[in-house]
This record gives sequence, structure tokens and C-alpha cells, in this order.
Amino acid sequence: MKMKKLIAAVAVACLSSVVFADEPIQPIEAAKDINTAQAELGKKLYFDPRLSKSGFISCNSCHNLSMGGTDNLQTSIGHKWNQGPINAPTVLNSSMNIKQFWDGRAADLKEQAGGPIANPGEMAFTHELTIEVLMSIPQYVDEFKKVFSKDGITIDEVTQAIAEFEKTLVTPNARFDQWLKGDKAALNESELAGYELFKSSGCTACHNGTAVGSNSFQKMGVVEPYKTANKAEGLKGLTGKDEDRFKFKVPTLRNVEMTYPYFHDGAATTLSQAVDTMGRLQLGKKLTDDENAKIVAFLKTLTGEQPNFTLPILPPSTDKTPRPVPFE
Amino acid sequence: MKMKKLIAAVAVACLSSVVFADEPIQPIEAAKDINTAQAELGKKLYFDPRLSKSGFISCNSCHNLSMGGTDNLQTSIGHKWNQGPINAPTVLNSSMNIKQFWDGRAADLKEQAGGPIANPGEMAFTHELTIEVLMSIPQYVDEFKKVFSKDGITIDEVTQAIAEFEKTLVTPNARFDQWLKGDKAALNESELAGYELFKSSGCTACHNGTAVGSNSFQKMGVVEPYKTANKAEGLKGLTGKDEDRFKFKVPTLRNVEMTYPYFHDGAATTLSQAVDTMGRLQLGKKLTDDENAKIVAFLKTLTGEQPNFTLPILPPSTDKTPRPVPFE
Repeated sequence: MKMKKLIAAVAVACLSSVVFADEPIQPIEAAKDINTAQAELGKKLYFDPRLSKSGFISCNSCHNLSMGGTDNLQTSIGHKWNQGPINAPTVLNSSMNIKQFWDGRAADLKEQAGGPIANPGEMAFTHELTIEVLMSIPQYVDEFKKVFSKDGITIDEVTQAIAEFEKTLVTPNARFDQWLKGDKAALNESELAGYELFKSSGCTACHNGTAVGSNSFQKMGVVEPYKTANKAEGLKGLTGKDEDRFKFKVPTLRNVEMTYPYFHDGAATTLSQAVDTMGRLQLGKKLTDDENAKIVAFLKTLTGEQPNFTLPILPPSTDKTPRPVPFE
Repeated sequence: MKMKKLIAAVAVACLSSVVFADEPIQPIEAAKDINTAQAELGKKLYFDPRLSKSGFISCNSCHNLSMGGTDNLQTSIGHKWNQGPINAPTVLNSSMNIKQFWDGRAADLKEQAGGPIANPGEMAFTHELTIEVLMSIPQYVDEFKKVFSKDGITIDEVTQAIAEFEKTLVTPNARFDQWLKGDKAALNESELAGYELFKSSGCTACHNGTAVGSNSFQKMGVVEPYKTANKAEGLKGLTGKDEDRFKFKVPTLRNVEMTYPYFHDGAATTLSQAVDTMGRLQLGKKLTDDENAKIVAFLKTLTGEQPNFTLPILPPSTDKTPRPVPFE
């Protein structure tokens, strides 16, 4: 009986690996190896606007977990309504990113997390004040002590906890993943045709792997140049090399139905526009309306299970907590 | 008049239970008679920034349920970083308010909910555009149909659903309520002494009933005039009568530890400051540091169970959804 079960299990395993072995996209699995205590602390920090000068902007303001981990704005709103320079990428599945930010200037989630806090156009705070605020709140002091087994709070621990929470934000079980794993009824004919077109048109050259992207930097505008008023230059901003102009991290297409508008400048309002532009500029291919619609239908099957957790309750400030200064 | 209300409050207490029959404060009970389907829909709307012109501000921005149902700012931040005219009152237990807003200009939660959406300094949207946005999103159309048993969406239904969600935001089981219900170990000596001082000093003349306030309008600055640069005049703004100047709704003291800063102008940063000012201006009494500390200790026992629900996931916009215009 045991042997039978083992054989059956092996058979299923073989079958499922065969199913998506030839596919350029792999299913997302549930988050593993999470330090739950760190992640719970990180969740609070992620929602805490006291990590901003104004006391109004939290990580969740621009990477809103009710809205696909983004703000659904062309570019973000920062301190004093500053207009951000670039479209906020989704935080969902961002642990799979080869690097962080559109230009990859942060190696990992932990390094990324410190950026917006101290960016004058975003949260406009400082790492020093972040620590001062947190150290003034006994519940935070206690929780950091419990989580990191030492006294005091460092910015390294703050970003570590936020990053650990962000690692939980994966979105498994999209209909496309169900299909990949063998449930052939998970996609309809049009969605499947869209997937075939997505592959045959060449989209999977860049949009592949578990995150359907996020694993390489590519030039925006390969066949035709990309025209935009946005000043971001991608990798060139880091290397200074002209050949790196407009090289951006290929965004994930997971949950792409929720992460509008599209491109680093947020110029494409709809998925249909984004697919059309990508076809023309990257692949030199004018997709018909029917082809476009089918690819869009396929892309919508990439929406996975969204974050599912209780809204965190933040510990109150004390008399010693530095107060926000929103209007200075 | 005050005495009449006090007698009425005590009478209600007598009816409810012998245990707290003599107390001017009654325990909060769990929300009852909630239309769950309406409240679930209302929760989404409460968190949906697409009810604002910018696509950035939701009800939860200024009445943040992670932070005692307020923004913990002196006055709120609105569209284009507009500085609001008054301190955002907590949404927690707001179903118990005699009327809504500091000046009571809205009769109930439903009437209140429509205000900020259309206020140019807050969400800066219109009711018409709210409906246009919601009608463009099939999941909302379906949910409204299911909840209200009819086609189409009206602003009346939108505010009704938000109000129904807000009715769920009560905070029972504070330590003080446990004490009221007979658990004499729920308060320590200092907290109990603070409660006795709170009563004997006269605070309960206005801060009484289930919400420990919220059931009358009173003049700010009875014994001494209140000095502030804030322009809000309270009831006078509605009646035009000089005698109504600085008459404001008495705020609830439930969860007051979390709802800093205090007063209609948010001028009191700490509970200690607020208690001191109230003592001097309303009661003509300079409390000693020890008395002040004891009253503050008592006030912190009014923190009840905070909202406990899963972060709502919002249905994505469609190609037809009007886009936010944050920078116009």
C-alpha cells in the first residue's frame, strides 16, 4: 500500500515536471523559509507612516497591497505631493527580482527598503529619525528585542524586517499556474491561444521564468526607439554609458492586470496599449486586434492569490516620540 | 440640560446592568444588527483611493484603522497636500456620535461619508465621478447588485455601504470595560484613582456614556477662553450665532491613547497636555502632576479591541475606468 502511494506520488511528480518542463514560465510556489517573527514586525513597519517626515506616507502608500502592490498612478506622489520620477513597481513577488528598482541600483529587498524612507521626494525622512521614532515606542522596542535577540534598534534591522515581510508577498495559484501544473480546464481557448501567441511572437525572450520577467535588463525600444518625456535613463544613470540608455529591468507580468499603468514612465494606461507598444518596439510586430485581445486574455490569467492578512494595528507614539512635520 | 443628560445616561446604565449602575460610563458592546454584505462592500470602498481625484487618498488615509481611526496629525493632509482646517476625528465608535463632524453638520455616518469625497481640500472628487468609476468596474457592479438587489450604483448606496462598515468599528473589551463589568483586577490602583479624579473633578459632566463623550456639544473654554490660531468656530459656523462660537462636539475618549493629537485644532500633543488644558479651561482646576498622571493612566484603560479584519483587495480598474489626475 505504501509502495503504491510512493509510485503514485512519483508518477504525479514526473507528470507535473513534464507538464511545464518545456514551458518558458514556471509556477509560483508559496513563500518558504520565512522568519515569521521578522515578517510580522516588518508588516507593521510597512504600514507605519511614522517612517516618513509627514507621518502620512508609508511603504503601503505607493506599494498598496490592496491594489496589486502598486499605486496605480503614472508616477508616485511623495512628500508634499512631489511628483515622482518613475512608475512604482509592484512589491508583489519582488523577492524574485534579479535586482531592485527599475535600474537595479539596489541588490535586494533589504537594500531597497532603506531608499524611499530617506528620499526627499518620497518619504523625506532620515534613517536616524526612523530609529529615534521607533526607540520612543516601547512596543516596538520590545518587539525588535524579541525578534533580533538584542537591545536597541538599527536601520539594518528595520530594512531586514520589511524585506522579510515583502518575501511573504508572493502570489501563487494563478489560473495560468493551475494550467501549468496540469489542470487543462484552467484556461479557455482564447487564453491558451494568447499564450501561444505570447510565445511565438517572442515575448518570452524577456518575459520568462517564475516571475514572467524580472530576471534581466533590456533596452526599451529595440526595433523602434521609445519616445517619452520621462527623464529616467535606466542603467545609464548608474554606468554613465550611452549604450545603457533606456536599459531597464524587465518588469514581472505576474498580476499585471492589477499593476497598471505600464512601463517605467507609466505611459501605457491599458494592457492592450502596452501589448501593442511592446510588439511594435521590441519585436517589430504589429499585432492584430484579435491577437492583442488574446494576449491580454492570457496575461489576465497571471493574477495569483493576493496577500491575505489582518490589517496591522500600530503601537501608539509616546510623549517622547518626535512628531511628524507634514507642512515644513 | 447637562444634568438631564447625565440623569438619562445613568438611567440607561441602570437598565443595562446593576454592576455599573452608578457609573457615568457604560461598556461598549460588540456591533449588532450589521448588514454584513453591505459592510464588506463598504470596507472596500473605505480603502479605495479611486474615490479621490488623485487616486491616492482613501477614507483610510485620514481615518487610518491601523492608528486608532485617525491620522495622528494636527490637521489632515488633503488633495495636493492641502492643509486641512481641523483635526480628523476618529472613526472608531463613531456610530455612537450624537452627530458627525466637530460641528455636527452631518446627522449620521451616511451623511458624513459623502462629504470628504467631494471636498476640494480633501479627496477633491465628485459624486458623479465616483459613480462613473465604480460603474466601470464589473466586480463592483456585481457586488452592488448583490448587496442592494437592484441594477446600477447610486451615491446613496456608496455612503450607505461605507457607513455600514463604519458601524462595525466599535472597540469593546477595554480594560476599563472589563472593570465596569465586574473584573476588579482589570485596573490597578493608580488607574482607579485616576478614574475617581476624573469623576470628582467634573470631567464626566461632558465625557460620559458609552463613548465617554460624543453625546453633546460644549463650549471650548468655559472658565478661561481657549486661544488658538485655528479658524474653526464650531456650531457658530452653522447657526451664525455668537454664543455658538467654539461650541464643538465633545470628542469620545475611547482609544484616546491612540488618537493624538487632541482638540479640534490638534494643539495638544500629549494626553498630559490635554488633561491639563481641560482642567484649567473647562473646570477652573489646576491638576497636580500626580493627579494629571493618574487621570492619564485611567484614560489609557479606555483602549479597546481594535478593528480586526483582513486587508481588502480592490477590484482592478478596466479600460473604461476614468483615470486619476493627481497633478492637475
